[in-house]
Amino acid sequence: MISVTLLGAGNVATHLFKAFNASKKTTVNQWFNRNINAIHQYKNQVKITDNLNTLEKADVYIIAVSDNAISKISSSLPFNDRLVVHTSGSVNIHDLDKKHKRGVFYPLQSFSKTAKLNFKDVPICIETIDKKDYSILKEIATDLGSPVKKVNSDQRRILHLAAVFVNNFTNQLYRVAHEITESEAAEFDLLKPLILETAKKVQDISPYMAQTGPAKRNDTKTIKKHLALLNKNQHKAIYKLLTQSIQDTHGGKKL
Amino acid sequence: MISVTLLGAGNVATHLFKAFNASKKTTVNQWFNRNINAIHQYKNQVKITDNLNTLEKADVYIIAVSDNAISKISSSLPFNDRLVVHTSGSVNIHDLDKKHKRGVFYPLQSFSKTAKLNFKDVPICIETIDKKDYSILKEIATDLGSPVKKVNSDQRRILHLAAVFVNNFTNQLYRVAHEITESEAAEFDLLKPLILETAKKVQDISPYMAQTGPAKRNDTKTIKKHLALLNKNQHKAIYKLLTQSIQDTHGGKKL
Repeated sequence: MISVTLLGAGNVATHLFKAFNASKKTTVNQWFNRNINAIHQYKNQVKITDNLNTLEKADVYIIAVSDNAISKISSSLPFNDRLVVHTSGSVNIHDLDKKHKRGVFYPLQSFSKTAKLNFKDVPICIETIDKKDYSILKEIATDLGSPVKKVNSDQRRILHLAAVFVNNFTNQLYRVAHEITESEAAEFDLLKPLILETAKKVQDISPYMAQTGPAKRNDTKTIKKHLALLNKNQHKAIYKLLTQSIQDTHGGKKL
Repeated sequence: MISVTLLGAGNVATHLFKAFNASKKTTVNQWFNRNINAIHQYKNQVKITDNLNTLEKADVYIIAVSDNAISKISSSLPFNDRLVVHTSGSVNIHDLDKKHKRGVFYPLQSFSKTAKLNFKDVPICIETIDKKDYSILKEIATDLGSPVKKVNSDQRRILHLAAVFVNNFTNQLYRVAHEITESEAAEFDLLKPLILETAKKVQDISPYMAQTGPAKRNDTKTIKKHLALLNKNQHKAIYKLLTQSIQDTHGGKKL
């Protein structure tokens, strides 16, 4: 059994706790959170604590707290030379206190409180200062059922940035579609199969190959009609900028 | 049996042909295309023609040609008072020649040559000038297994516009993510589960509720880091505009 201590009680920590709990080779020995009420409901499944001085020995300490708090909590840990990792996409591995053996265990997925996730759909990006520490992190990630990838800090921060485009920004385009359909009493629900199909398509072919539509085929008549239909200036600006981006990618003409 | 005549040989026409061919109550009697070579391979399954004057009587004529050609081909049909529909998201029902009984049969989905589609994932938006013509269109759409929705021309053109946001523009965000990950030798493939999860999430909850990330929580430190990481001005512009849009939606502060 590999023993893990979790620090933090956000969505990532909670999903990790449940997944490790259901895994075969990994056990969560102890769970720390500054505010113990947040993890009180798990007290029959795991030792919980709000005091860093009570932390027991574990094979891996996983810090899953907000980015700003990672460095400080790693310094506050009352021990040295144990393997301490964080789970953030954008925090450098060197932000962990160098008194520890250090690593990153970054699950590249969007975690929400409610939605259930199968860890086979959660790639884990692993980085370690010392090569020797890689294998135990790979082992617990594999134990979760996750795909595992060695990713350095430069690659990780680019993945985190790219994730903002494909997750937050994409979701905002869904939001804009929701706004404009509602404004004409049209049903946003009718777009849901298209939303899924668009995401499915790039599982097999590149986004470049998957592109279609008025911007790509430089259908200026439709583009003008669309711009005239949009009421909000911000929606017009998004339409123009992304149309231009598509045309630049596919060698089309300027608007 | 309901008899259908198809006009056009693009992706929509071809998917409709195959789906009607596999359906129970609808048969494609005849398939017209100006360039007969494009449909020659189907000549053992259906009567093909490149001559509008040879068109036989059918219950429904489905015009699935490019938007610009719809009006002209509807006028060129050598008969009156039969049910003629087009499949376009952005063309008005009144662009069909008024000598016909007129309708729209708009499949709201992205059709590509290769990808297989189940018509249960293709909502059909139906409009007719005469109420009496609605039921036969609903019947053939239901026969395909599609969800069916009555949608007027105003609603349809808004849905078509919204589809550009959730399909073409979303796909371009995937493309940008592909570009920026490749530029750092990071793997775009690692983002694919996140792309799917983002699309799945809004099947059940609204895009408003689904939003997360640095823009929504006004994490200016991460936003600045991200902008500094982007090399292309266009990528920076997209990042800024969509971050602003998220902050406007969620009542955050200005950049």
